[in-house]
Amino acid sequence: MQMALENSNPKQLAAEQAVAYIQDGMTVGLGTGSTAYWAIQQIGKNVHSGLQIKAVATSIQSEKLAAELGIPLIPFSEVKEINVTIDGADEVDGAWNLIKGGGGALLREKIIASSSKELIIVVDESKVVDQLGKFHLPVEVVKFGYELTRHKLSMLGCEPNLRMEDQRPYTTDNGNYILDCDFKQISRPGECHDAINSIPGVVDNGLFIAMAAKVIVGYKDGSVKELQKAF
Amino acid sequence: MQMALENSNPKQLAAEQAVAYIQDGMTVGLGTGSTAYWAIQQIGKNVHSGLQIKAVATSIQSEKLAAELGIPLIPFSEVKEINVTIDGADEVDGAWNLIKGGGGALLREKIIASSSKELIIVVDESKVVDQLGKFHLPVEVVKFGYELTRHKLSMLGCEPNLRMEDQRPYTTDNGNYILDCDFKQISRPGECHDAINSIPGVVDNGLFIAMAAKVIVGYKDGSVKELQKAF
Repeated sequence: MQMALENSNPKQLAAEQAVAYIQDGMTVGLGTGSTAYWAIQQIGKNVHSGLQIKAVATSIQSEKLAAELGIPLIPFSEVKEINVTIDGADEVDGAWNLIKGGGGALLREKIIASSSKELIIVVDESKVVDQLGKFHLPVEVVKFGYELTRHKLSMLGCEPNLRMEDQRPYTTDNGNYILDCDFKQISRPGECHDAINSIPGVVDNGLFIAMAAKVIVGYKDGSVKELQKAF
Repeated sequence: MQMALENSNPKQLAAEQAVAYIQDGMTVGLGTGSTAYWAIQQIGKNVHSGLQIKAVATSIQSEKLAAELGIPLIPFSEVKEINVTIDGADEVDGAWNLIKGGGGALLREKIIASSSKELIIVVDESKVVDQLGKFHLPVEVVKFGYELTRHKLSMLGCEPNLRMEDQRPYTTDNGNYILDCDFKQISRPGECHDAINSIPGVVDNGLFIAMAAKVIVGYKDGSVKELQKAF
């Protein structure tokens, strides 16, 4: 019964299919979040069975999990190239543009993803949308003068809310704030990305444009499919 | 003799001319560095003589100086609009594009400048150049994975050097590193600015493109001139 339940977890099934792309000798980027969790678990099993890889992690949380599972980790100073990174997303559209950063690690995830030859996104079907923007877009901003930055963001047509945690502003691993921006809908993700990042004080935002090389979707019925790209 | 020497300081003379643009009721942005120092000194004198303004500062250093001189400072949460900011620069070209950040405060300076209706740049003649880039361009980057970010910067054709202080990496007020990038020459500053800022991990860079409203230059001979804009 336990096995049956486990096997019908769409995130886990999709993550396992993504991990099948990892081969001996690769440097692998480890994502963060509930889907990346299953990918790291599977990578751990494969390493235990003899898979020879090195890994870098997008968060302290994933680094810890990888270490516990015996996945060999290397520092960034030793990274020449990342072959493949497996990570989740909060929203994926048909053109494989993403919103990420619900977990607060958008910048580290983007740094790793942008240094990877291949970014494989793993999601369950609830994350696949026709248009991005229902999920509030996380924007990482420096603390200094963030009121001015928030004002400029609002001029782009969104409502930016300072992310809170325990009644205090949430602080990222990089020491910055997150403004969760309610755009309702984002019809031109690429332009929106550039407009946001051109504001001084913005460190980066959760739009990942044309970065994904594959999107693997797990469905409630137990099936897993690679998402067809729409143009 | 002392007076004569003081009066022939090109930075001071240019700064005093810039301060003449400040009027009652304005919110004023205070720059950082050796030229901004003279501007703040002059603003302090004018406030003492009855000038009614409010100010915000781009660094703890300038904030301290302003407080000592009795210049009323307000927090960013109270700032609706900054009327004028007076700041220095490390290089200025004929199109009034700038390199700033030698002092490490580029991001705070850019946040303030971008929220100002008018940015007045004050320099001595040694900072006026035909082409930007002899001065190494400061780029503020997050600490996480900065080796990857440095590698991507080098692909743009520069040599990025991690700024050091007391044999340790220099850390900005925002908790980031500075990579001083030797481009030799920057022939298309706007494109260079955008290319650098599109790298994940880059917080901002010291190119200030089309932000200056006036450039006031102090010369060794004691003259002060507003720089004519070349297109």
